Amino acid sequence: MASMAAVCTKTPYPSHSLSTIPNTHFAQIRKVSVSLPSVRRANRRLRVSSGLIEPDGGKLVELVVDEPLRDVKKREALSLPRIRLSKIDLQWVHVLSEGWASPLSGFMRESEFLQTLHFNALRLEDGSVVNMSVPIVLAIDDSQKHRIGESTQVALFDSANNPVAILKDIEIYKHPQEERIARTWGTIAPGLPYADETITHAGNWLIGGDLEVIEPIKYHDGLDRFRLSPAELREEFTRRNADAVFAFQLRNPVHNGHALLMTDTRCRLLEMGYKNPILLLHPLGGYTKADDVPLSWRMKQHEKVLEDGVLDPETTVVSIFPSPMHYAGPTEVQWHAKARINAGANFYIVGRDPAGMGHPVEKRDLYDADHGKTVLSMAPGLERLNILPFRVAAYDKTQGRMAFFDPSRSQDFLFISGTKMRMLAKNKENPPDGFMCPGGWKVLVDYYDSLAPMSDGKVPEAVPA
Amino acid sequence: MASMAAVCTKTPYPSHSLSTIPNTHFAQIRKVSVSLPSVRRANRRLRVSSGLIEPDGGKLVELVVDEPLRDVKKREALSLPRIRLSKIDLQWVHVLSEGWASPLSGFMRESEFLQTLHFNALRLEDGSVVNMSVPIVLAIDDSQKHRIGESTQVALFDSANNPVAILKDIEIYKHPQEERIARTWGTIAPGLPYADETITHAGNWLIGGDLEVIEPIKYHDGLDRFRLSPAELREEFTRRNADAVFAFQLRNPVHNGHALLMTDTRCRLLEMGYKNPILLLHPLGGYTKADDVPLSWRMKQHEKVLEDGVLDPETTVVSIFPSPMHYAGPTEVQWHAKARINAGANFYIVGRDPAGMGHPVEKRDLYDADHGKTVLSMAPGLERLNILPFRVAAYDKTQGRMAFFDPSRSQDFLFISGTKMRMLAKNKENPPDGFMCPGGWKVLVDYYDSLAPMSDGKVPEAVPA
Repeated sequence: MASMAAVCTKTPYPSHSLSTIPNTHFAQIRKVSVSLPSVRRANRRLRVSSGLIEPDGGKLVELVVDEPLRDVKKREALSLPRIRLSKIDLQWVHVLSEGWASPLSGFMRESEFLQTLHFNALRLEDGSVVNMSVPIVLAIDDSQKHRIGESTQVALFDSANNPVAILKDIEIYKHPQEERIARTWGTIAPGLPYADETITHAGNWLIGGDLEVIEPIKYHDGLDRFRLSPAELREEFTRRNADAVFAFQLRNPVHNGHALLMTDTRCRLLEMGYKNPILLLHPLGGYTKADDVPLSWRMKQHEKVLEDGVLDPETTVVSIFPSPMHYAGPTEVQWHAKARINAGANFYIVGRDPAGMGHPVEKRDLYDADHGKTVLSMAPGLERLNILPFRVAAYDKTQGRMAFFDPSRSQDFLFISGTKMRMLAKNKENPPDGFMCPGGWKVLVDYYDSLAPMSDGKVPEAVPA
Repeated sequence: MASMAAVCTKTPYPSHSLSTIPNTHFAQIRKVSVSLPSVRRANRRLRVSSGLIEPDGGKLVELVVDEPLRDVKKREALSLPRIRLSKIDLQWVHVLSEGWASPLSGFMRESEFLQTLHFNALRLEDGSVVNMSVPIVLAIDDSQKHRIGESTQVALFDSANNPVAILKDIEIYKHPQEERIARTWGTIAPGLPYADETITHAGNWLIGGDLEVIEPIKYHDGLDRFRLSPAELREEFTRRNADAVFAFQLRNPVHNGHALLMTDTRCRLLEMGYKNPILLLHPLGGYTKADDVPLSWRMKQHEKVLEDGVLDPETTVVSIFPSPMHYAGPTEVQWHAKARINAGANFYIVGRDPAGMGHPVEKRDLYDADHGKTVLSMAPGLERLNILPFRVAAYDKTQGRMAFFDPSRSQDFLFISGTKMRMLAKNKENPPDGFMCPGGWKVLVDYYDSLAPMSDGKVPEAVPA
């Protein structure tokens, strides 16, 4: 901590490469999930013992049933009408089960769905408002609806036909696909990745209800140990005596401009009087579009960046955010921020055009680059969260490193675009020294190397920045 | 009042035709607008002297400049860059000038526009929230933007080249047409009347700012006397000692089912303990789509219905709501309700599929018929308003009049659809006795008679119910 403070006063970030540091900053699950106390007890304990920001609705929702009940629930599930979950549906069950969407207790019923679409917020029974900007819903088709019949609950099964959860007190209502897409993305142009994948061809009905998840959702991909739940993150922040937690959402490789920003943010929080601000470096782990760098490669890259000492392990927690990606810009950034409140973050770093992408049909960005930040700063239910706008970093040729852009000497700066970075990595060329740590860069080169060239000799597109 | 209470206990509404009653229930402007005190004084007086619901933001915004200043403002306008207003733009100036959109003080700046699109609500400086669901914006094109240059204010001119208003402290920002349409209507299908008319071909920029309106907006169409401002309506309700005001928005002819509903509502309010509930019968007077019955014919029809004594003149105020129509269903119904709060209404009657229409491309309604009511009941900033769901009325063959539908004897009821009513009026046939008062029906027949048949002998479509 002292060393970081010193960095603040001398240089905005450590440009020298430190020797490899043990991987302690990758916060791993210290307690196995099955030993977690039941929902209510866990919440009470957390609320009393930590000074972290309260979860939305005052209580962290946890929907995994206690271990002694699991066999009973499994048997119960086998007797109910079944819904087969897609990969993305399962990711949402994961999200819901751990309370990222607190106070939601399951897939949305119609009143929650409509409030989400129209207001990006839910009003609770006590009159208070929590943010909720993307619909978390489960679609079924006519034949599934028919099979459910008069049943008041259904069982959710994964693709391997294992029971995952029971959905209780169900409500089945119309799935207005076009309206859902229009209000979530501000367009209905074909080619929105998430919409094409999960909405356009989905069933005509949505089924909401309360979830009972039979056991913690695991992916067995070697990365489960990095998938800390909000309760586990809160424990970790408490263990580290965090008095501020600042979250950085990402779905791309980390370069030194990001690192500069994160280090600088910590300095600013120290200047504000916080004694121990902790960074939650929080890569998104759910569905991403085909040309994004896959999670496993990103995690390797992040690991290298941290090993290279660009970020202080003492004050950094790296964990995976299990949500799928909508690419819904100003609407989605609210979800990204809100979920981090539930994980204990009271500061959120927002960049240019968060969760944005190119318009799928027209030659322009889908969203104005400033709208995400602006909308986030005004969003209902996020008043408690401190929004930290991303300062623009670029490669400073005079210093040979990434630095905050200074418009008074703009000729000294080099903007290395995503396209440029991609081309360099594909061609196994090196970026300017100090753009990204060498270990992280190598992961990127290896990733592109691993992609089989297409028949025309081109490597598939990917968006690493 | 006593007679109405008696009606409540005996029959739900007076089915007999009363003799013609003088037109006192058409509340006309008692004080000429130019004699209204200045904005601030008017607000203070209203807030102290009446028990009506407070306007949004605590103060009724009025943007017409005091008479002594008008010549100065007119000269000032002549020296500024000019924007020519469309007919619909002018209707919005009217709406803003009288405070229907309080606390908005002019066309929206970007932060208000974005909050409207994403949240259907605006957060005020004190942290409170008011509803605002449709963008009230002014579009300009590249050349207009160029002409405005560095000026901080512009003058707004009507189509006859008369100065209408000055827009001050302007902010010019991008007009995201597609996103605006998608988030407002939940579709971008071509054929949305308001979007086709005002958005799709509008300029690439929006200009927001504070309005100074040079004189009250008048249309000189013989109906200005029915266009009471929120301040004038509040005066009228206060004069009548209203302790509850229930608003009924409409853009179609009134039949006896509507009348039954309004009369029944008053009975229910009396049962709730109110001593003098007043009905605001409030036809929309701004832009409507080509196949709606024009305002002038609707006003004739309403006048006949009231002359026929179907509603009690003592407890009914008929006035014109100057807003243009979006046909944006659940989004727009919020605007219709919110504007009536500003006019003093604390009860709002909401029907099936309010502000809805057929999908412009697909063969279905654009909105689920229940969504308007549901969304309205959950809308941020409307918590103070009492929402009264429309009870379904149909023609009761056993009683020979409109009555609330009783599902236990559904065979006794006849639903007379808009299409059916239209066909009858076009063919100069009569509906069943008791469906609509004869005078009102004659207006409808006369309207269709006045339409020149098209070349194929067909009468243009219209939607009178």
